[in-house]
Amino acid sequence: MIISIIGVGLLGGSFALSLREKYPNMKFVGVDQSVVNQKIALAKGIVDEIMTLEEALQVAELNILATPVDAITLLLPKILDQIPEGRTLMDFGSTKELICKVADAHPKRTQFVAVHPMAGTENSGPGAAFKELLPGKNVIICDKEKSDTDCLTLADTFLRDIGMKIHYMKPVEHDLHLAYVSHLSHISSFALGLTVLEKERDEKAIFDMASTGFSSTVRLAKSSPQMWAPIFDQNKQNVSKALGDYIEFLKKFKVAIDSEDLPTSLDFMSKANDIGRILSGIEKK
Amino acid sequence: MIISIIGVGLLGGSFALSLREKYPNMKFVGVDQSVVNQKIALAKGIVDEIMTLEEALQVAELNILATPVDAITLLLPKILDQIPEGRTLMDFGSTKELICKVADAHPKRTQFVAVHPMAGTENSGPGAAFKELLPGKNVIICDKEKSDTDCLTLADTFLRDIGMKIHYMKPVEHDLHLAYVSHLSHISSFALGLTVLEKERDEKAIFDMASTGFSSTVRLAKSSPQMWAPIFDQNKQNVSKALGDYIEFLKKFKVAIDSEDLPTSLDFMSKANDIGRILSGIEKK
Repeated sequence: MIISIIGVGLLGGSFALSLREKYPNMKFVGVDQSVVNQKIALAKGIVDEIMTLEEALQVAELNILATPVDAITLLLPKILDQIPEGRTLMDFGSTKELICKVADAHPKRTQFVAVHPMAGTENSGPGAAFKELLPGKNVIICDKEKSDTDCLTLADTFLRDIGMKIHYMKPVEHDLHLAYVSHLSHISSFALGLTVLEKERDEKAIFDMASTGFSSTVRLAKSSPQMWAPIFDQNKQNVSKALGDYIEFLKKFKVAIDSEDLPTSLDFMSKANDIGRILSGIEKK
Repeated sequence: MIISIIGVGLLGGSFALSLREKYPNMKFVGVDQSVVNQKIALAKGIVDEIMTLEEALQVAELNILATPVDAITLLLPKILDQIPEGRTLMDFGSTKELICKVADAHPKRTQFVAVHPMAGTENSGPGAAFKELLPGKNVIICDKEKSDTDCLTLADTFLRDIGMKIHYMKPVEHDLHLAYVSHLSHISSFALGLTVLEKERDEKAIFDMASTGFSSTVRLAKSSPQMWAPIFDQNKQNVSKALGDYIEFLKKFKVAIDSEDLPTSLDFMSKANDIGRILSGIEKK
């Protein structure tokens, strides 16, 4: 069996690396517009061969579309136009509503499975891919009833084979939750990085005074702008609402600090502490 | 030599654990108003004996005041009143301006060394203490010229002995930087925890959909309110300014997302990416 990875980056690359460990006779072909990414993907053994999109679609049983989400919405109809009957296309986009809408408008919708693996790091590109990224993590499949049974089974099987835990969800529901538990974290981190860089022109002060707490909070500010700008754009209503809620809490916190209202500060923090219970739930999974 | 740990929590406890490894014949006495903390500190071998503050001050050569910062400002003058001549008092508070002002007003100011070890975790109390917390980390000493040479040398020696890197600074400078590289991180994390908990009443959704990025950004929301409320209060002018700057960046980000202004979003994120250089500097240290 041949699998194509269209966009050989962190997610697509990590998927290939973990799947090829389970299926040593499977062949992987890579499609990527970046020549550097092509070379790294070959050198790292993520794919066996580089092809054009057209060539890959002719040979691959399963195609993984793992580009940034703006490229997914552009490529998805083109790929479905060309995909032979009986073959499967999965995407790995971090948004689902717009992508599923684009797919719904295509006559070959049933050959598509909408997938979002809930994993990532602040690094991107095939150089950052590693086979341990996806196993043990959650993965969301949206609108499963719109996929052909064979296509869905193929996607389900491979995702389970590499140790992922599958959840099914509506795209609207997916995008709403993601705004809060992922997209907002990234914005809070980007803005924190900006605030500190703006103020602390003397970098030595940051080196000397920042602790591990700072590093952990600001780590996501290293994430790829080219990947995240289209995510925020495609999920802008939910992200804007989540960000608005966040700004409101920060403003209330600021008022409590400014007015030396310790009971309110304490109350905010005690309520926030409850996240500990949820984090230990996440870590235990 | 006898050392007293006044407030046997994460920092005081970790200091004792790393120092007693270097000095096996040193005796450690603990002072803590919590009976549970006393028992844990004894059981964990952080201290050899529990004493009242008055008793400890009579026997200890060096006293470490490692309570929350509101208790530090209350206890500092009382301790200096009672401390015998030639003995040393160090504090471990996360703010320095108010603490140093309180010390400056005392006739025995020279026996005090103002210290802030740049380390911590989201956990607190003696149960969370571990001997690896402080070695390799930075530590700030403020107003060193106001400390007696012998007292300063004693503090310097023990901090270096456990592998800390000492930096000297003015209290005003310390509190300003800390607002940006530590206090703001904590507020951003507390507010993120609150925002998500408020929205996601269905906790299962968080479990299923949150990734490691979320955990890392929100980790500090588990921090102790009793420790942090007085820090924000004592450093309120700087914290309020930093928080105001942060809210402004978030609002600009929101406008860029709402107006589909991708170039501005991309520009914000690209600038924030520069934090990566600084983080790798912190990690290399």
